[in-house]
Amino acid sequence: MPFKSLVEEPRCQVVRTLDVVGEKWSLLIIRNALRGQTRFSQFRDQLGIPSDILTARLATLVSGGILEKRSYREAGSRERFSYHLTEAGRALNIVIAALMQWGDEYNPSPYGQASLVVDGDNDDPLELAFVGATRAAVPSAEVKFLPGPASVVTW
Amino acid sequence: MPFKSLVEEPRCQVVRTLDVVGEKWSLLIIRNALRGQTRFSQFRDQLGIPSDILTARLATLVSGGILEKRSYREAGSRERFSYHLTEAGRALNIVIAALMQWGDEYNPSPYGQASLVVDGDNDDPLELAFVGATRAAVPSAEVKFLPGPASVVTW
Repeated sequence: MPFKSLVEEPRCQVVRTLDVVGEKWSLLIIRNALRGQTRFSQFRDQLGIPSDILTARLATLVSGGILEKRSYREAGSRERFSYHLTEAGRALNIVIAALMQWGDEYNPSPYGQASLVVDGDNDDPLELAFVGATRAAVPSAEVKFLPGPASVVTW
Repeated sequence: MPFKSLVEEPRCQVVRTLDVVGEKWSLLIIRNALRGQTRFSQFRDQLGIPSDILTARLATLVSGGILEKRSYREAGSRERFSYHLTEAGRALNIVIAALMQWGDEYNPSPYGQASLVVDGDNDDPLELAFVGATRAAVPSAEVKFLPGPASVVTW
C-alpha cells in the first residue's frame, strides 16, 4: 500500500482541519455564512476583503467541500453565483463557537458580545462543553490530549 | 468616552481570538504545548518550523498572554528559556479540540486519529458538545448564531 508522506497526507487532525479552513479570512467567511450570508457582495462588503482574495478563498472552500456554489440570476442582471454551507461547512460551527467562547472569557471586547450562540428551537444560550460517555461535563482543566493510533511523533 | 474604531478594537469574538492565535503555526505551537512541550528545540524539531518564525510566534504568544517565558539552565549550558501555557493558553484546548473533532468527522486521515481527547482522571474519551442551561446536549444542526449587544453589522 503506497503510504503518502506526512507532508502530503498529514495525520494530525488539527493540521488537516487547518489545511482546509486555517486562514483568517476563510474562518470569517464561514462565520458570515453561518449568519446566513451567501453572496459575494455580502462577504466583500461586510468583511472588507479585497475581491481577488475573496475569490481565491471561496474557491478553496468550495474545493474543500465547505461551500457549495450555485448560480442565480436576478431580473435584468447577468448570472451570478451564491455560496451555501454544506453539511461539513455547517459543522464548523463548533470551531467558530470555540473561538467565540475563548474570546468571551479571555479577550472580551469592552462593548460586550458581538454574537451569541443559541438553541435554534428557543433561543436559549448555549456553550461548548467537554462531555464523556455519560454526557456529564468535564472541566476544561481536567481535559488531556493523548497520542492516538496514527501518532508518529514523540509527545 | 473615546471609542476605538472596529479595526483597532474589533468586537467580533472570532476576530478577537484570531488576532491572538489565528495563524497556523501559532495553533500548532499551542497544540504541542498542550502535549507538554515547553522548549524551543522541541517546537522547532517537531513542527519543522524555521527558527526565525518560531521566535516571532513565541513572542506573539507571550505578549498575548498565552505562553509564559521562564529561564532555565542545564549543567554546563548557557541560560535558555522555556515556554509554559498560562491559564488562558490551557483554555485554548477547546479550540484545538474543536479543530480535531471536525477533522475526525469530515476530513479523517486514512491512518486514524493522531491525537485523542480524554478525561485526565480516567482516560475516558471526551467530545465537545453544545449544551444549554440544563446541560443537555443540543445537536450541532440546531445551533444558531445571533447578533449580540455589541453587533454593529447587518446579518
